[in-house]
Amino acid sequence: MKTVLELGRLAKQASRTLSVASTAEKNAALMGIARALTSHTDEILAENARDMQAAAENGMSKAMQDRLRLTKERIQGIADGVLQIVELSDPIGEIESGAVRPNGLEIQKVRVPLGVIGIIFESRPNVTVDAAALCLKAGNAVILRGGKEAIHSNIALCAVMQKAIHEAGLDPNCVQLVEDTSRETSAQMMKLNEYLDVLIPRGGAGLIQAVVNTATVPVIQTGVGNCHVYVDRSADLAMAAKIVNNAKTSRPSVCNAEESLLCHREVAEEFLPMVKKLLDESNVKLLGCPETIRILGDSVLPATDEDYATEFLDYTLSVKVVDSLDEAVAHIARFGTGHSEAIITNDWTAARRFEREVDAAAVYVNASTRFTDGGEFGFGAEIGISTQKLHARGPMGLKELTSTKYIVHGDGQIR
Amino acid sequence: MKTVLELGRLAKQASRTLSVASTAEKNAALMGIARALTSHTDEILAENARDMQAAAENGMSKAMQDRLRLTKERIQGIADGVLQIVELSDPIGEIESGAVRPNGLEIQKVRVPLGVIGIIFESRPNVTVDAAALCLKAGNAVILRGGKEAIHSNIALCAVMQKAIHEAGLDPNCVQLVEDTSRETSAQMMKLNEYLDVLIPRGGAGLIQAVVNTATVPVIQTGVGNCHVYVDRSADLAMAAKIVNNAKTSRPSVCNAEESLLCHREVAEEFLPMVKKLLDESNVKLLGCPETIRILGDSVLPATDEDYATEFLDYTLSVKVVDSLDEAVAHIARFGTGHSEAIITNDWTAARRFEREVDAAAVYVNASTRFTDGGEFGFGAEIGISTQKLHARGPMGLKELTSTKYIVHGDGQIR
Repeated sequence: MKTVLELGRLAKQASRTLSVASTAEKNAALMGIARALTSHTDEILAENARDMQAAAENGMSKAMQDRLRLTKERIQGIADGVLQIVELSDPIGEIESGAVRPNGLEIQKVRVPLGVIGIIFESRPNVTVDAAALCLKAGNAVILRGGKEAIHSNIALCAVMQKAIHEAGLDPNCVQLVEDTSRETSAQMMKLNEYLDVLIPRGGAGLIQAVVNTATVPVIQTGVGNCHVYVDRSADLAMAAKIVNNAKTSRPSVCNAEESLLCHREVAEEFLPMVKKLLDESNVKLLGCPETIRILGDSVLPATDEDYATEFLDYTLSVKVVDSLDEAVAHIARFGTGHSEAIITNDWTAARRFEREVDAAAVYVNASTRFTDGGEFGFGAEIGISTQKLHARGPMGLKELTSTKYIVHGDGQIR
Repeated sequence: MKTVLELGRLAKQASRTLSVASTAEKNAALMGIARALTSHTDEILAENARDMQAAAENGMSKAMQDRLRLTKERIQGIADGVLQIVELSDPIGEIESGAVRPNGLEIQKVRVPLGVIGIIFESRPNVTVDAAALCLKAGNAVILRGGKEAIHSNIALCAVMQKAIHEAGLDPNCVQLVEDTSRETSAQMMKLNEYLDVLIPRGGAGLIQAVVNTATVPVIQTGVGNCHVYVDRSADLAMAAKIVNNAKTSRPSVCNAEESLLCHREVAEEFLPMVKKLLDESNVKLLGCPETIRILGDSVLPATDEDYATEFLDYTLSVKVVDSLDEAVAHIARFGTGHSEAIITNDWTAARRFEREVDAAAVYVNASTRFTDGGEFGFGAEIGISTQKLHARGPMGLKELTSTKYIVHGDGQIR
């Protein structure tokens, strides 16, 4: 079992050759991975069965077990996902900008790989392949550190990928797995500045907070979304009810789901009962301010500030009646996590103010927050959704896994 | 004296209004700052005199004292620098990209401020105003934490700026100074995640390393440059000698100065004496490999690996004779800091390989490394030179002090 330091050294080495590999070479490796996933399905399923057995023995919840489970169909889905990444255009080498300076220097800003990316993630084994394929396409070596619950699945998936990469003529250390899933290896990755160019944690708020607090390697924060929908007084209330219901109930466990509803006082009396009717169909639990409770009755429990700050990831919605757009914007500034925020309005000035003043990765006018997603935004695939402002914000596709360098051509210029 | 936490809270508040201020409002504040610097020159000089007296009493080196000293002309120069920032186009609100999705959603990626920027810097008081003006133009509030040697100058400069900002109708807390220059305030800024969006250390390698190791706030690393010039066997040797000499001696104390010369074995015998003749005019001290010493004689001291890893920032140059382009690239990969690297060559393939394979913010073919600079690159001004790959790489102008957000317009789309 290699140490984290050894994995880092090998990844750095592999990244040098991968950074100058052609798109054709990288695509050949990806197609090889897709084929190998299909042809090695039985071995992968056998290893996944070991993880599933351990999960059952350890009393893992059914929902978590479902996330961990691989099937023939799911492996085919993962392979198809890799083939979709083959189809994406390669950002490496793109010229972002260029100029000739008065002294004749020709300056180009070109897109290059980041180098070596570390990914710390929780128990879904599909992430192992998705993340590796995206990193590889963007010319980056990757060190994957998954959860111990999926370790046998991950070892099998990485072995299959490494073999395919090697057969395609690239360095198999482009994709490596940390097989030791003790806490120490996670901590070591967070301080691996010599070899890692960036660390991306993918998982719950606890994991992300731990990485931010400990890492000396640059981190991209992903995923925590305490998302609001604000129904303005000028909203088309029927549209608003559909959007609120969709943002809450279409998939409550994801980061772009709505966690809090803000409603302008002037329309609360009419709107709240309307939307409650829809939400009741999914048995959404409501936590509201006194005005919400006055309108909707005692089935709504009182909401605390802690509730307004909570990403429920469940069929629970906090509700607040506000006096104005200003109050809505201030509430979002206080409790939001800068992920996705929506206003439902027909007032041009209100829409403009909301989209300018609300500080979030994605700000919506008259649409569901659920669209904050690499696929929905047209990126083809995503490695996560950044909620920080540095480097990348919002859904991160291939381009967000790259950096730039300046190439300067001269004919003897001195300063 | 406000605490760091209080400064953070006020900066966050100020950044909300500043982020939606118009270009005209921001320019009015900048012009006000420029005027106020001129009209308050006497007060600023009086406070600078207190710092200079303390510096003399504490035995500060003459070179450092010169960096600390303000004069009427220097203050005018600082004011002129602010007026140049007025002339730069405002990046805020620029639409980076946009698309209409098949479902009719209109997605725009627009440029927005980062929010609140922290800058920790050493004793040059001109940085105080430069940094504040750049941050303000890009819509960011800034918290400045300068060295204790310049504290009276910095307090005076910040007071002048705050007054001018207030008179222009913006929140004076857009620009704040940490007046307590104890180590604790520096450490507090590094953990001020609640309020700081990014922290930029400007100073020596020690400061930068301390910030990287301690900060939980996202950091942009700047400035350490162990820059190489590689003279290929096909180089125009007269051009090469001029470039090597320029890169070393035009301003040895800056990060884009050359620290190490690599020379292909086939031309070493001819080139090294040529370039030594030029370097001798500036009394450059040479540290060389055995082959260099064989060619140039015993006036060249032996270079250790530590020498090859050192950013001298002085009239000292390490020299190594290499057998090939590969050896040069490998040496740079081992000892370089990813700042600026140059090849002098007339070989097309060698130039192409060098610019692709060398991993640095700026890679030069047939020009001096000294051009890595916001002004020389046409950005008008710079806040520093990033040597990391995340967010910004190379000279950072106004655009690098911004982030983006997605604004999504719909007419009721749900998912």
